[in-house]
Amino acid sequence: MKGGNYTSLGTYSGISGSGSGNMSGTSKMSLGKSIKMYLTIFILTTCIYMALYQYHISREPFPASEVVKPPLYIITPTYRRPEQLAELTRLGYTLKHVVNLLWLVIEDANKTNPLVGHTLDRIGVPYEYMVAPMPEKYKQTKKAKPRGVSNRNRGLEYLRQHATEGVLYFADDDNTYDISIFEQMRYISKVAMWPVGLVTKTGVSSPIIQEGKLVGYYDGWIGGRKYPVDMAGFAVSVKFLKERPNAQMPFKPGYEEDGFLRSLAPLADAEIELLADDCRDILTWHTQTKKNAPGQPLNRTRYKNTNLEHIDRLLVRP
Amino acid sequence: MKGGNYTSLGTYSGISGSGSGNMSGTSKMSLGKSIKMYLTIFILTTCIYMALYQYHISREPFPASEVVKPPLYIITPTYRRPEQLAELTRLGYTLKHVVNLLWLVIEDANKTNPLVGHTLDRIGVPYEYMVAPMPEKYKQTKKAKPRGVSNRNRGLEYLRQHATEGVLYFADDDNTYDISIFEQMRYISKVAMWPVGLVTKTGVSSPIIQEGKLVGYYDGWIGGRKYPVDMAGFAVSVKFLKERPNAQMPFKPGYEEDGFLRSLAPLADAEIELLADDCRDILTWHTQTKKNAPGQPLNRTRYKNTNLEHIDRLLVRP
Repeated sequence: MKGGNYTSLGTYSGISGSGSGNMSGTSKMSLGKSIKMYLTIFILTTCIYMALYQYHISREPFPASEVVKPPLYIITPTYRRPEQLAELTRLGYTLKHVVNLLWLVIEDANKTNPLVGHTLDRIGVPYEYMVAPMPEKYKQTKKAKPRGVSNRNRGLEYLRQHATEGVLYFADDDNTYDISIFEQMRYISKVAMWPVGLVTKTGVSSPIIQEGKLVGYYDGWIGGRKYPVDMAGFAVSVKFLKERPNAQMPFKPGYEEDGFLRSLAPLADAEIELLADDCRDILTWHTQTKKNAPGQPLNRTRYKNTNLEHIDRLLVRP
Repeated sequence: MKGGNYTSLGTYSGISGSGSGNMSGTSKMSLGKSIKMYLTIFILTTCIYMALYQYHISREPFPASEVVKPPLYIITPTYRRPEQLAELTRLGYTLKHVVNLLWLVIEDANKTNPLVGHTLDRIGVPYEYMVAPMPEKYKQTKKAKPRGVSNRNRGLEYLRQHATEGVLYFADDDNTYDISIFEQMRYISKVAMWPVGLVTKTGVSSPIIQEGKLVGYYDGWIGGRKYPVDMAGFAVSVKFLKERPNAQMPFKPGYEEDGFLRSLAPLADAEIELLADDCRDILTWHTQTKKNAPGQPLNRTRYKNTNLEHIDRLLVRP
C-alpha cells in the first residue's frame, strides 16, 4: 500500500511529541539542547516530506500535451457508397493511435453528409470534414475518371491557408497503415518515400535502393512515369509544399502521384528521404474493399414500428 | 509551476529557524513557550506536507490494470494469402483500443508463419497464435469449403481449457468493428445479437425488434435457418458456453452461425440480449477485401544487393 510511508512518519512525530512531557523542570542548558533536538527533528521531518513530495511529483507521467511533435495532416478523399462509414471507421481507429494529427476528410460531393459527420464524431480523431466535387467535365467521360483529385487538391488548399509546419500524407480510406510509418514521416524536411504492399502484379511498389541510394522504382506498371509510386508511398513537408505555390495534383488518371511529385520540382533524387528501414520494410498496403450493391429498399409497411426503420436511415446509398 | 507550494513552505521554515537566535537568555517559562511554538510549527509543517503528499497520491490516475472488466476473447480465423498481414494489422489497431482482451488468432495451416507472429508482436495486442488446419476431406470438395470452421472450433477448445469468465466473439480479419460494440458485449450473461452492415442484398442483417422483443430476422438469405445471422452479429458468454460441453461449429458452408447457435440449446429467444441500442444502430460491418494475385517472383539477378531482396521475404504468397 502506498500510504505505508506516510503512516509510519505520522507515528514518529507522535513519539517525539510525547517526549516533550519530560522537558519541564530541566536546566536552561538541557532546554537549549531540547530546542536543538526539536529543531533537528523538525528540519529532518520537513526534509523527508519534501523529498517524498518531490519524488511523487517526479513520478507523475509527463503530460502528452506537452510533448510537441510536428503535426501530421492526413488527407483522405472519400465518396458516397455503401462501405463509406465502415471504411472511415476502420481507418479512423488506426489514426486514433497517432498524436498531433489532423484528419482532413474530403468528400467528392456537393454537400456534406450528416452520417459521415456523425461517424467522424464517434471515432474521436480531430478532423475537418469538407466537400470538393469532381468538375462536371470529368464526370461525363467514358474513360477512367480522375477520382479523388478534387478532394486532394482541396486538402492542399486547406494546408496553404492554415498550416505552417509538419507533414502531409494522402491516406485513402480503404488502405492499411502500420502506425509506425506516421511517426517516421513526421520529421521529414522535404519528400519521403517507402514501399507499399499489394500494388500491381509485383505484389509491392517500392523505390529501389542500392548502397543507400535511390536508383529507380520497382512497380508492375511504370507507364513512362518519373515517379512510379503509389499514393500511399510518399509524404511531403508542409514548408516544402508552401515553397512551391503552384504544386497540385493533375486530373489525369494513373498519373496523379507522378504529376503531383513533378509539380514539386526542383526536387533532386538525393533529397528524397527513404523511410521504413531504408525501404526494406512494408508499413503501408494498398488494400481495396469489395464493392457492395446498395441495400434494397425497406418494405416500410411490413416493418412498420420495428428497429429496421431506424437502421434504414443509417445505410449509405449512392 | 507545481513546485511553487513546496518552495514557499521551505522559506517559511527558514524564517522560524532564524527566530531561534532570540531564544538564548530568556526565562524557563518563555523557553517552554518557545518549545510549544516549535512543536506547533513542527506539527503544522508536518501536517501541511502530509496533506500535500496525500493530495498528490490522490491525483495519480487510477491504474487501468486495477479496473477489472470481464475479459473478451476474440477468435479470428485467418489463412495464408497476400492480404493476410495487412488485414491482421488493420484489425489489430481496432482491438488495441479495447482493454482486457485476448486475441486468439488461429490459422488454417499445418504450422505457424513467423511473418504472422512478427506482425502480431508489432501490433502489440495480447494474443495467442495457433494453427488448426481444415480436415483433408473438406479440402477435396468442389463445392463451397467450410472456411474458418476448424479455426473457430480450435478457439472454443482453447476457451474450454483456459477461460472461466468473460465473453467470446468471432471477429474475421477483414471485417470492420466500432469499438463500442466490444464494451457492450463484455457484460452479457448468455448470448447477445445486433445488426451487421453490408450483408447480402438487404444491405444489413439484423434481428427484428418490435415493442422491445425479438420477433424475427432481416437478411437477404434466410435459407431455412433458425438463426439467420452473420458471424459478426453475435457474442456468447464463456460461462454459458462451458455449460454446453458439446457446442461447436458445424462444417456446413452457409450454416456455420446457425449450427453453432443451435448447439447452444436450450436458449430461448427471450434470453437473447439485444445490443447496439436495441438493434437500432450499426456497429459492425461485413467488409470484404479484394483478392490480390500473389506477387510475381523477384528477379534475383537483376535486383541483387538491393532493398528488394529484403522486401521479397516479407511478401505472403499462398
